[in-house]
Amino acid sequence: MLIIGEKISASNRSVGEAVANRDRRFIEDLARTQAVGADFIDLNAGSGRGAEEHKDMEWLVEVVQEATDKPLTIDSDSPGVIEVALGKYRGDRVMINSVSAEPERLESIGRLAAECQALLVALAMGAEGIPNDVEGRLAACGQVMAHLTRLGLGEGQVLFDPLVLPISVDAGQGMVTLKTIEAIKSRYPEARTVMGLSNISFGLPRRKLINRAFLLMAAYAGLDAVILDPLDAKMMTFVKVAEMLTGKDPSRRGYIRAHRKGMLVD
Amino acid sequence: MLIIGEKISASNRSVGEAVANRDRRFIEDLARTQAVGADFIDLNAGSGRGAEEHKDMEWLVEVVQEATDKPLTIDSDSPGVIEVALGKYRGDRVMINSVSAEPERLESIGRLAAECQALLVALAMGAEGIPNDVEGRLAACGQVMAHLTRLGLGEGQVLFDPLVLPISVDAGQGMVTLKTIEAIKSRYPEARTVMGLSNISFGLPRRKLINRAFLLMAAYAGLDAVILDPLDAKMMTFVKVAEMLTGKDPSRRGYIRAHRKGMLVD
Repeated sequence: MLIIGEKISASNRSVGEAVANRDRRFIEDLARTQAVGADFIDLNAGSGRGAEEHKDMEWLVEVVQEATDKPLTIDSDSPGVIEVALGKYRGDRVMINSVSAEPERLESIGRLAAECQALLVALAMGAEGIPNDVEGRLAACGQVMAHLTRLGLGEGQVLFDPLVLPISVDAGQGMVTLKTIEAIKSRYPEARTVMGLSNISFGLPRRKLINRAFLLMAAYAGLDAVILDPLDAKMMTFVKVAEMLTGKDPSRRGYIRAHRKGMLVD
Repeated sequence: MLIIGEKISASNRSVGEAVANRDRRFIEDLARTQAVGADFIDLNAGSGRGAEEHKDMEWLVEVVQEATDKPLTIDSDSPGVIEVALGKYRGDRVMINSVSAEPERLESIGRLAAECQALLVALAMGAEGIPNDVEGRLAACGQVMAHLTRLGLGEGQVLFDPLVLPISVDAGQGMVTLKTIEAIKSRYPEARTVMGLSNISFGLPRRKLINRAFLLMAAYAGLDAVILDPLDAKMMTFVKVAEMLTGKDPSRRGYIRAHRKGMLVD
């Protein structure tokens, strides 16, 4: 399971303040502590400060690539912000988060991904919002893949996000997301699947419990990558267990090593 | 998820001693404490004392049906022991655990199940042991179902156990069991699936963690019933979460009620 560390997001108040104040040490700490468990570090400079996002993202890329060698995930809605970030980034592996089937941003961000040979997260939705069912989400993935193929991206560059709606609003949405993962894996065997977990439990008590349980089901359904807090020891424990149970840790060494290091938390 | 409480098993030393000493109070306590979370109470008198199993099972059925109104699961290899237990049992809902595709016991125990309209657990294996792959286990289920249908049992009376082999021996066995559940549910939509969890983690550290994670994946794969310790609060918490995530608690009331009662344990 590819782990994308989610903590450097300016939508979080303390991170937003650190970015606004150019608090280098605070961001470096978040980068280094996440780097222990994460494969990619997500950078999101969208704090609602509008025009500042370009400069904020540029600063984040500079600070974080000084603090860690882990590849970055450039997380923005704005093609301009993504372009600035890619210009500053010196690593050779990079992920862009995200596009959807909405054609205009798909075209411009897709071109940037093609130029940089970047991995690209694509949401299973179009301009009209999130489809309620598996068929609608799969249709959006189809539009995305057709467009990206025309731009020269390979199927293996794409990570589809099946999207998660709260089960507090519609009890069937857990299954819709999980079945969408299965459908994507079956139709696009070289593409990967990725998602964040926390939407599933919105509006319910004991949210972390639900998020962890959902991760296990998603891992069985075929989830390849997850956006989460790599400092959440219980969640990371379940990542290890999930990999072993789905046969992705065939020697069981990942699990045993985590156990010996005292990293398995009950 | 149907919960079958596993604690009254004479293979467990303290239970075996209580049975041998006719310690009524010890068994009543196990019955009453399990009854809070269980839908069925499993009774297994197989302590290795051989010829005593008939008398021990007879005594267990008498004691447990005095202590609780929950239906019983008569758990034995021996058609004679099962017949004695069914003769003593006054409840109208009963489960027999278990048969396999081995024809002789399938015939005699199948006839008892047909006479009593009992639910019947059928292991996905034949006389030659546990098949290594999904196809072999499904073939065994096919033999069982054909035989039971001839004896007059309905598909809905059968609970298939896909069987679980330790991932410490073969890392692929978690997926074999989960895919067998899916295959059974697809081929026999009216039959149910049931299993115990603990074999999966045999030989590995932090076994309960692995067992709980496996339950969540199995619930998504289509598991209908599980044999476990209903006093294991963390496991029972995951049962509640699994039911909500798979849409089997459509109002979320089961989860919310468990939360309000303080039953959700992290």
